[in-house]
Amino acid sequence: MLEKDLLNVKKAQKELELLSNEKRNEMLKSIADALENNKDIILKANELDIKNAKESGLSSAMIERLTLNDSRIEGLIESTKSLISLHNYVGELIERIERPNGLVIDKVMVPFGVIAIIFESRPNVSVDIAGLCIKTANACVLKGGKEAINTNKALVQVMRNAIKNIVNPDVIYLVESTDRAVTNELITLKNYIDLLIPRGSKGLINYVVSNAKIPYIETGAGNCHLYVEKDADLDMALNIAVNAKYQRPSVCNAIENILVDEDIASKFLPMLYEKFSELKIEMRGCEKTLKYINVLKATDEDFYEEYNDYIVAIKVVKDIDEAINHINNHSTKHSEAIITKDNEKASKFMALIDSACVYHNASTRFTDGGCFGFGAEIGISTQKLHARGPMGLKEIMSYKYKIYGNGEVRK
Amino acid sequence: MLEKDLLNVKKAQKELELLSNEKRNEMLKSIADALENNKDIILKANELDIKNAKESGLSSAMIERLTLNDSRIEGLIESTKSLISLHNYVGELIERIERPNGLVIDKVMVPFGVIAIIFESRPNVSVDIAGLCIKTANACVLKGGKEAINTNKALVQVMRNAIKNIVNPDVIYLVESTDRAVTNELITLKNYIDLLIPRGSKGLINYVVSNAKIPYIETGAGNCHLYVEKDADLDMALNIAVNAKYQRPSVCNAIENILVDEDIASKFLPMLYEKFSELKIEMRGCEKTLKYINVLKATDEDFYEEYNDYIVAIKVVKDIDEAINHINNHSTKHSEAIITKDNEKASKFMALIDSACVYHNASTRFTDGGCFGFGAEIGISTQKLHARGPMGLKEIMSYKYKIYGNGEVRK
Repeated sequence: MLEKDLLNVKKAQKELELLSNEKRNEMLKSIADALENNKDIILKANELDIKNAKESGLSSAMIERLTLNDSRIEGLIESTKSLISLHNYVGELIERIERPNGLVIDKVMVPFGVIAIIFESRPNVSVDIAGLCIKTANACVLKGGKEAINTNKALVQVMRNAIKNIVNPDVIYLVESTDRAVTNELITLKNYIDLLIPRGSKGLINYVVSNAKIPYIETGAGNCHLYVEKDADLDMALNIAVNAKYQRPSVCNAIENILVDEDIASKFLPMLYEKFSELKIEMRGCEKTLKYINVLKATDEDFYEEYNDYIVAIKVVKDIDEAINHINNHSTKHSEAIITKDNEKASKFMALIDSACVYHNASTRFTDGGCFGFGAEIGISTQKLHARGPMGLKEIMSYKYKIYGNGEVRK
Repeated sequence: MLEKDLLNVKKAQKELELLSNEKRNEMLKSIADALENNKDIILKANELDIKNAKESGLSSAMIERLTLNDSRIEGLIESTKSLISLHNYVGELIERIERPNGLVIDKVMVPFGVIAIIFESRPNVSVDIAGLCIKTANACVLKGGKEAINTNKALVQVMRNAIKNIVNPDVIYLVESTDRAVTNELITLKNYIDLLIPRGSKGLINYVVSNAKIPYIETGAGNCHLYVEKDADLDMALNIAVNAKYQRPSVCNAIENILVDEDIASKFLPMLYEKFSELKIEMRGCEKTLKYINVLKATDEDFYEEYNDYIVAIKVVKDIDEAINHINNHSTKHSEAIITKDNEKASKFMALIDSACVYHNASTRFTDGGCFGFGAEIGISTQKLHARGPMGLKEIMSYKYKIYGNGEVRK
């Protein structure tokens, strides 16, 4: 049943790929209009999900993420429209190789084909992903959480109706079953799905990584570090610490750890303590930290924890080598920053830290497709294969070689 | 035990990454010299493997692949030396993004880190891979087949000795245990290995794809097609058919299938029959084919088979749509060719065929790092994530973002 549906998705994708960029932009415009004209249907479906969520005792944070309202739908409409003016990568020539034997080899950007996204709670993901996929001529298979099923059904129905006069609407496909067995099957259907992107909790991502039989891109987990080197401008360090920890602690590019050089610990830690206490950020320090400030003692586990909350782990280090070592052993390879006036130390840190984004004298909060100027973002990759860090349109494209000959054979 | 060793490999890789391109070239030169000076040790170890292989009744084809001799070692020396003059990608700036807020974002090419290669029989893979990895500042973890264990041990020992005065020799690491349980462990050690590349039989590759918990690149399987469209130059088609099937049938870019348009079947199939009969190529045809030439009947399975032998499956198709459909449903996404004088048909074929390399009027045998001008090849990828088709040095690199600020925080 699922396989039969996915075969249709695969066929629909080829149709989409053959359309012009103008036609795909027309589809985006049509989706934006349809969202505008069907707000009531979408909000009604969302209300049902919220009612069910409350009845089954979901946390208020979960319910908050699940909730759509007028302004959130406006946001989806705007982000869909904003894709229209972005660069079209489909069919773009990356490189032309002309060989001595006369063969012309064109390396050309092509869509992956069918991208499956497995996500949780936030139903806005359906619209975001569908828009990004249409722009790049990929078909999308959406598998949301059961708590948002009514909202996702409504959103997908609205989008499919909006495009059905231009292309086979199976280019946007929702897996309606919320049965775990269906997800299990989905992540092994290699002949129908070209790329898997899990978006959501650590649990979801680990589940996909452990069970998928299809190439995937791991996203999202961010156990990020700020390292205050002994030659740091301490006011800058404090300002960045506040921004990276406090401005929006629930996101993956917020820091979870601050490392401080021993030489400046007696000066910097009291500054940090004063400011973070004022902001009601819970501090957990290593044994050395406790010599300087009166905070909770951090356990070993604390340094592996992605709190996503007003909590930070603090460690005093002997020098840059200990800092680099600690970070490489504890980070999720997302984003780390060094604060220092010493450019050589900064270079060393940025070369040896094995993370997608390494910052010198700036906040880790900039790891974001928007802040990088990508115009759109599909997630933050924490793996090294294919895409690393913020993923924009280009990162959901593959390539192929088109080779033009005149009867050439190999000698 | 394995984990402890791999931790050392990981540390050694960081040392390698900090070395200059000149130092890494010096290592390649030193390996080439050491292979020259230790031929006797290597050949002696290889003799032992061959003796064991004969005693355990391995096929002569397997023994042939296992065998090293003077000229094969010379080949390894030459290919190692040839890496020295190739382009150095380590640290290369891919793109600089300057943001309105003052941040400078450098997208820089970096090695993956630790690459594990699981391979069979051919011990030359050890030297090929070690060279490619040193050039790109990657460490390699080599896991060969048990039939080649003595040769692999000798080769790796010679290479490690050759580089130990320049870098920690753990950048070239051989998994000496031939126990399957060790392989099982190896392909799940995500914290130590950044990329897995299986090289060898379909069985090996399927095993890795089904069990790995580390990003991998699938290589090698080639169920390639030649499609003779009705507007083909039939002499060209025949010439390419002979080259793609007959010149070296054991390789992955050889064709296994020929599709022929119905309109020209009565003309082309007898030409093909005459030539292929003369070359003693076994032909297996679909039902329609049997109306034109007297060959064996092909089963459904024949069209999925990678023969790697002097055998070909032949199918008569109604038109280009049937050809495209058949190929996309049966191919391994490696290489396919269309022979036609109609450029529009060729464009359609090249757009819709979902394979790494699509040819117009040329032999599929050109899908090869050397033929593409890459200078070196690590394998042919049949997946779409990260690398597609022939993989050279650039394809075993990842990237990272280095972001330079002046105290910037996110608003």
